[in-house]
Amino acid sequence: MKLRPLGDRVVIKRVEAEETTKGGIILTSTAQEKPQIAEVVAVGPGGIVNGKEVKMELKVGDKVLFPKYAGNEIKFEGTEYTVLNQGDVLAVIEE
Amino acid sequence: MKLRPLGDRVVIKRVEAEETTKGGIILTSTAQEKPQIAEVVAVGPGGIVNGKEVKMELKVGDKVLFPKYAGNEIKFEGTEYTVLNQGDVLAVIEE
Amino acid sequence: MKLRPLGDRVVIKRVEAEETTKGGIILTSTAQEKPQIAEVVAVGPGGIVNGKEVKMELKVGDKVLFPKYAGNEIKFEGTEYTVLNQGDVLAVIEE
Amino acid sequence: MKLRPLGDRVVIKRVEAEETTKGGIILTSTAQEKPQIAEVVAVGPGGIVNGKEVKMELKVGDKVLFPKYAGNEIKFEGTEYTVLNQGDVLAVIEE
Amino acid sequence: MKLRPLGDRVVIKRVEAEETTKGGIILTSTAQEKPQIAEVVAVGPGGIVNGKEVKMELKVGDKVLFPKYAGNEIKFEGTEYTVLNQGDVLAVIEE
Amino acid sequence: MKLRPLGDRVVIKRVEAEETTKGGIILTSTAQEKPQIAEVVAVGPGGIVNGKEVKMELKVGDKVLFPKYAGNEIKFEGTEYTVLNQGDVLAVIEE
Amino acid sequence: MKLRPLGDRVVIKRVEAEETTKGGIILTSTAQEKPQIAEVVAVGPGGIVNGKEVKMELKVGDKVLFPKYAGNEIKFEGTEYTVLNQGDVLAVIEE
Repeated sequence: MKLRPLGDRVVIKRVEAEETTKGGIILTSTAQEKPQIAEVVAVGPGGIVNGKEVKMELKVGDKVLFPKYAGNEIKFEGTEYTVLNQGDVLAVIEE
Repeated sequence: MKLRPLGDRVVIKRVEAEETTKGGIILTSTAQEKPQIAEVVAVGPGGIVNGKEVKMELKVGDKVLFPKYAGNEIKFEGTEYTVLNQGDVLAVIEE
Repeated sequence: MKLRPLGDRVVIKRVEAEETTKGGIILTSTAQEKPQIAEVVAVGPGGIVNGKEVKMELKVGDKVLFPKYAGNEIKFEGTEYTVLNQGDVLAVIEE
Repeated sequence: MKLRPLGDRVVIKRVEAEETTKGGIILTSTAQEKPQIAEVVAVGPGGIVNGKEVKMELKVGDKVLFPKYAGNEIKFEGTEYTVLNQGDVLAVIEE
Repeated sequence: MKLRPLGDRVVIKRVEAEETTKGGIILTSTAQEKPQIAEVVAVGPGGIVNGKEVKMELKVGDKVLFPKYAGNEIKFEGTEYTVLNQGDVLAVIEE
Repeated sequence: MKLRPLGDRVVIKRVEAEETTKGGIILTSTAQEKPQIAEVVAVGPGGIVNGKEVKMELKVGDKVLFPKYAGNEIKFEGTEYTVLNQGDVLAVIEE
Repeated sequence: MKLRPLGDRVVIKRVEAEETTKGGIILTSTAQEKPQIAEVVAVGPGGIVNGKEVKMELKVGDKVLFPKYAGNEIKFEGTEYTVLNQGDVLAVIEE
């Protein structure tokens, strides 16, 4: 069972505290506040969204920065995710 | 007697607490807060909505995730439903 | 004397408490809160509304569900009506 | 001296309390609250308003229903009028 | 030295209390509240404003009705003016 | 070192209290409140701004009237400036 | 590891207190409030953003003025950055 986001939405999962990336780099987030670093776990099909063509630039596995409070937080099979529009993602972290 | 939503609206019914899907998977929702998992029970015709072409991607029977407080809650023949725009649905749960 | 709504507006009249439809089905609404079930009593001509083509899909006699507080409540010849845009109507109740 | 509204505006004058129409019908409004029934006394030329073509459907003499608090109230030569956009008028009262 | 408004703006000057027009008609405004009657003293060139073509219909010398609190009040060479968009002017007073 | 505004922005500098223009006219502003008279010190290139073509009509040296609180106040090399969109400028003061 | 902003976003880093530019000019910001001078450290690809073509005019290394509270503040690898839309940048500081 998996999530298939609609339109230009992506499903992301926050990177908890400290996590080693494939390239061996450590992503950290302050303990005091919720991390703004997340991994993309599902990507919508894009296409016509609100009457405007949207091309998806994110892909599953991308590490991204996103704004606090953006999108909708959901709990699915015991795990917390955030569902937000691709346009709300601030930047991709490239290794 | 049944509901025929207008435009790009869909009628969904919350999945209560724990429910086994056709594929045998159990959907659960926390007891403390209203579940955000629902089943689509009726789908509007789409077409031109607010001057923009909308193609319906959801179909009756789809299990979906939707944001808290989205759409309008209605009571019809003793059952509670939520009527919301397709664009407000976050993701489809695929088995 | 009758009401002729402008643009894409429709005039609806709430269905009070319990009412038998032509097909013999009973529409009910909770006593505590205002019913959200209404009958369409007048339909505007549609056409260009706010620069966008609107085609009227509702017709006089349709039973509809509409959101609380939508549209404007008016009193005309001693009867209360709600005037709202077709796009605010949630769903048609089909028998 | 008379008022010539701009764009898609109309000037309306509230129908006070009880008034007999040409057809002999009595229009009434509740005494407690301001009447929402008015007579159109001037109609703008329509045309391009906010970059959109607007065709005027109202004419001087029309009896109309309008929402509370809509438009701008003005006092002109001792009489109170409301100036509002044609699109804010809810319905025409036809005899 | 004079004011040249930009875009679809007009500069108007409130008509104080009581004033005789060219045609000999007396314009009055209630003493308690600021008059909503003004004379146009400068008219912008119109043209493309916010990406939309605007044609100026007002001319210097026009007596107009305008909504309370509309536009920007400015003081220029000791006189108070209001600068507002043509579309905010409610009606022209014709003699 | 100088400021180059982006898009349809202009940089203006308030005219302090009393200042003689080239033509010998004295611009004054009330002492109690911030002057709304300013001189244009830099003009953006215009072009496509928010998807709409904007043609710059202001030029360096123009004396302009602008609304209170419009735009962003910045301090640059010890001097206070306001950066605002050309469309927020109310009028040009012509000598 | 570096940041790749999406769409028309840029990543900027505030210039702390006093800093000498390549040309030998000293940029200063008041100590009391956060500096509004920053250096561009990453630029998005531009292209179609919200259905409108955006051409990037900023480049890495540009010194810019930006409004207080604009964009999203993020902390990445121990350094604070602001991610904002190119259209929110007020002006480029040219040497």
